[in-house]
Amino acid sequence: MAETVGFIGLGNMGEPIAENLRRAGYALRVYNRTQSKAANLVEKGAIPAANPADVAQTGGIVFTMLADDRAVEEICFAEPSFVEALGNGGTHVSLSTISPATARRLAKHHEKYGVAYIASPVFGRPEAAAAAKLFVCVAGPAAGKKKVEPMLKAIGQGTFDFGEDPGAANVVKLCGNFLFAATVDALAEMLVLGEKNGISKKAMAEVVGKFSPLHAGYANLIAEGRFEPAGFRLALGLKDINLILETASASVTPLPLASLLHDRWLASMAKGRGNLDWSAVALDVAENAGIAAAKAAP
Amino acid sequence: MAETVGFIGLGNMGEPIAENLRRAGYALRVYNRTQSKAANLVEKGAIPAANPADVAQTGGIVFTMLADDRAVEEICFAEPSFVEALGNGGTHVSLSTISPATARRLAKHHEKYGVAYIASPVFGRPEAAAAAKLFVCVAGPAAGKKKVEPMLKAIGQGTFDFGEDPGAANVVKLCGNFLFAATVDALAEMLVLGEKNGISKKAMAEVVGKFSPLHAGYANLIAEGRFEPAGFRLALGLKDINLILETASASVTPLPLASLLHDRWLASMAKGRGNLDWSAVALDVAENAGIAAAKAAP
Amino acid sequence: MAETVGFIGLGNMGEPIAENLRRAGYALRVYNRTQSKAANLVEKGAIPAANPADVAQTGGIVFTMLADDRAVEEICFAEPSFVEALGNGGTHVSLSTISPATARRLAKHHEKYGVAYIASPVFGRPEAAAAAKLFVCVAGPAAGKKKVEPMLKAIGQGTFDFGEDPGAANVVKLCGNFLFAATVDALAEMLVLGEKNGISKKAMAEVVGKFSPLHAGYANLIAEGRFEPAGFRLALGLKDINLILETASASVTPLPLASLLHDRWLASMAKGRGNLDWSAVALDVAENAGIAAAKAAP
Amino acid sequence: MAETVGFIGLGNMGEPIAENLRRAGYALRVYNRTQSKAANLVEKGAIPAANPADVAQTGGIVFTMLADDRAVEEICFAEPSFVEALGNGGTHVSLSTISPATARRLAKHHEKYGVAYIASPVFGRPEAAAAAKLFVCVAGPAAGKKKVEPMLKAIGQGTFDFGEDPGAANVVKLCGNFLFAATVDALAEMLVLGEKNGISKKAMAEVVGKFSPLHAGYANLIAEGRFEPAGFRLALGLKDINLILETASASVTPLPLASLLHDRWLASMAKGRGNLDWSAVALDVAENAGIAAAKAAP
Repeated sequence: MAETVGFIGLGNMGEPIAENLRRAGYALRVYNRTQSKAANLVEKGAIPAANPADVAQTGGIVFTMLADDRAVEEICFAEPSFVEALGNGGTHVSLSTISPATARRLAKHHEKYGVAYIASPVFGRPEAAAAAKLFVCVAGPAAGKKKVEPMLKAIGQGTFDFGEDPGAANVVKLCGNFLFAATVDALAEMLVLGEKNGISKKAMAEVVGKFSPLHAGYANLIAEGRFEPAGFRLALGLKDINLILETASASVTPLPLASLLHDRWLASMAKGRGNLDWSAVALDVAENAGIAAAKAAP
Repeated sequence: MAETVGFIGLGNMGEPIAENLRRAGYALRVYNRTQSKAANLVEKGAIPAANPADVAQTGGIVFTMLADDRAVEEICFAEPSFVEALGNGGTHVSLSTISPATARRLAKHHEKYGVAYIASPVFGRPEAAAAAKLFVCVAGPAAGKKKVEPMLKAIGQGTFDFGEDPGAANVVKLCGNFLFAATVDALAEMLVLGEKNGISKKAMAEVVGKFSPLHAGYANLIAEGRFEPAGFRLALGLKDINLILETASASVTPLPLASLLHDRWLASMAKGRGNLDWSAVALDVAENAGIAAAKAAP
Repeated sequence: MAETVGFIGLGNMGEPIAENLRRAGYALRVYNRTQSKAANLVEKGAIPAANPADVAQTGGIVFTMLADDRAVEEICFAEPSFVEALGNGGTHVSLSTISPATARRLAKHHEKYGVAYIASPVFGRPEAAAAAKLFVCVAGPAAGKKKVEPMLKAIGQGTFDFGEDPGAANVVKLCGNFLFAATVDALAEMLVLGEKNGISKKAMAEVVGKFSPLHAGYANLIAEGRFEPAGFRLALGLKDINLILETASASVTPLPLASLLHDRWLASMAKGRGNLDWSAVALDVAENAGIAAAKAAP
Repeated sequence: MAETVGFIGLGNMGEPIAENLRRAGYALRVYNRTQSKAANLVEKGAIPAANPADVAQTGGIVFTMLADDRAVEEICFAEPSFVEALGNGGTHVSLSTISPATARRLAKHHEKYGVAYIASPVFGRPEAAAAAKLFVCVAGPAAGKKKVEPMLKAIGQGTFDFGEDPGAANVVKLCGNFLFAATVDALAEMLVLGEKNGISKKAMAEVVGKFSPLHAGYANLIAEGRFEPAGFRLALGLKDINLILETASASVTPLPLASLLHDRWLASMAKGRGNLDWSAVALDVAENAGIAAAKAAP
């Protein structure tokens, strides 16, 4: 009989990940605050849970994929909580990008119930999630990691183990997002510089597209001014940059590039662009170069 | 009979490029200030020239691959110069990364002699040059570009045409180097942040290596502290960042990320690291995080 | 008979302020964690209290001058607390530089006991405190401000009222410290630039000293490398810069200069300079210009 | 009989300086490109010269106060030039804020004619010039400095001697302008932060005004949005910041604060504010915080 796995959080990342677990042969119990988002999976056989605690089976496994630190904490500390429901021998696979500090705090809280907290933040956009091409950074107790190994294999193309400290995987994940944000800003600056020197953004993007698929993707978004619908919301990007800066402050590590990104993203928020794709910071770059918002807009 | 092509500047980029022209069937006349660097090509049949002007044939084609603006200007304005020797109908393929302003000035100067100045800066490290895998940005008069098309095909895997303004190709090339420098700094900052949070640089580099070959290359250099021999000298990187800032100033385009890189590179110069690979800026990042130079050094 | 005032926190700012209240005719009840620091005042007639709550009289007034947010919160939430002891009609004059958010939280907490929270952060170094030359930024309920007006007059040369929101006075105070930190960094950069161009720091400081006493003070500290004893500890400066950045984030205000200061101060912390005067960031500026720590040190 | 002094450049700084020389008893020969600006002085007895060379007497003294490096160079290298007219034993007192490199180049050029080049850039706005309250930084050959000492005394309240290297005085002057620009930016950022936290710019400016007259002046300009007429044009400020960065690059000194100012000023130029007072950079700070230009404008 199929092993049952609980899954909480069926957004544009969570749903395709859950679907890949289902395809790999796991029986799913699913929960999402907005219930309608569970419809597709339920149609394919997933059992809908009335509340988060209901997705858990004693000693079983629950995945969560939620928006931010607060959402993960709320669901873990809810009454009744799925953590308590998992109970001794249970395992929580936490896929969200949250702060290392929160991950450590949660791991301690889980220990009280005998539940292993497996930090498992993932790299990849929704399309990569759908294609089971995520890269998974994993950290936590060895036994728990061993247990969920085949599941992580089912959702990604590679798993990187960063040891027992649950915070470690989150540091790596945040570092990755920092690198992507830096890439977005660099591309935005170079495309505007080109534009002010008579080179169309499309022509520049074509060259840059040769460097890597990562560069191609962002350069095209900026060149085409295609900021909606958001692949990754600018406001969520700022959340991650802030987590990077907090982690840097706590470890006494000056990161001037992260500071620069913070200020760029914050300006974009102030200009009302939090719901656009984060490549929309290019509008701020353009405005500072005197290219009026009217012209800069998509 | 084979078409003859002149080639000036046989450094770690110029030599493999010239060799690919030879393999493609062109007869070479070569010049390098340090003559010994021409030995390999001469052994394979290239004709050594006693001075730069001697590589040129009336109405022919000369390639140059030199270190910086000043070197290109000196060789173009020398007496006698290869530009004068090319004379009416001649073509100068200028592969060096120089400023758009210099390119435009040279193009004007060449016109007086009836010589077409084809700006052709290339993307790629020495290994890519050897493998004929460069990407070539090209700009200048259409007829000249047409003439040298098969040669550029012989040295690269793709050519991008940016029109008639000779400065345009250089802007694009500088933008590319700006993006690479930004990548180096972002990687350096994230690897140090990881290190201060208990994650080895090797482990972090392994994940980053999945993003793209570009990221893998730089992340490994930094993780291994392998800054010699330099693939691209830090001092040359600063030269390019300064050219970006000049171009940005001239076109009234604020580029805070380029400013940040300028200051990072300048600090590394002040600390005596101009001859290391430019990924050695990671030492500066580490020092500012309190990781002593002694420990930070390779 | 003299009105009695409680005073908690007799550090290098608190003690001279309390002394000025005494001189103005107020009877003092004083408390300091390290009791010996109360000795001078006790000798002059102040009554030492065994615990913080003991400085308070029902419906009376208590001043606090403590290191940071946490210290103020701890003493306000202690059991028994002086806030409770003040009780209905009491007034708390909070002189510390803390975050606007903390001030607002405390004001709410005080309300439960009928105590008015008067935010009263001050501008001025210990010498200004001793000379009763502080500038006091004040905010909170009008009646409470009215009541303490003569006392604030006794310790300063001017009072600025920012209304009822207790956070407002703290924002202004933090802004002031931000300006001073910016001045320190600007002076450090210019003195190093001068030094690298053959102009002695003393000679430059002499000119700068003409701009204002503020400039003269910092320029001399840097020129003489006199970073101990600290007039204002670098670590405390970082605390304030971080409060500025938090306030800026919360109000969606990008402050790139504050970010720059954050990174400079953080690097100085990483290099072990938290206990030096904050003008010691000049050592970091010098090191980044290749002036070795050995030579840069005092 | 009164000693005669030549004076070239009668703008909003030059005219009051020349007037103070006149008051001190010197006979003036004056030249300004726009002749009408000489009218006031001529009315009071100054002799108008038809061209720059005509203000000079053999072995005499000529002051210049011009806009930038190029203007000073043009007038020195003109044919006929006042330098040649001064001839052996002559002295050129150069009051303009120009680059150290230009000052050194001019000093060499003057030597050929036996003319002493006395770099004498001044601190102070037009009102200070009118009140003879300038601070003068002076550098150059000792004999020449000795000769002009009484004249510099007549126009300022203090002279600072930086030795024989003519570039030194310019470095100091540029450093001063760097400090003022940093002050402007810091004030702009803090006033906007206050505004976003409910504190009026006027109220904040009132506190800041207590720190020094320098702070009071700029804070009031920003608080009142009084950017015209310009006390010091934003475009001229950018010129000086660029000279600082050039000097810093040449001496391998990273100045991140100068880079930040460069980007702020450049953005303001891109937004068309070059002719406003440089305190108008506050508009850029406000816009980046989401305070629309319409509301931000005076």
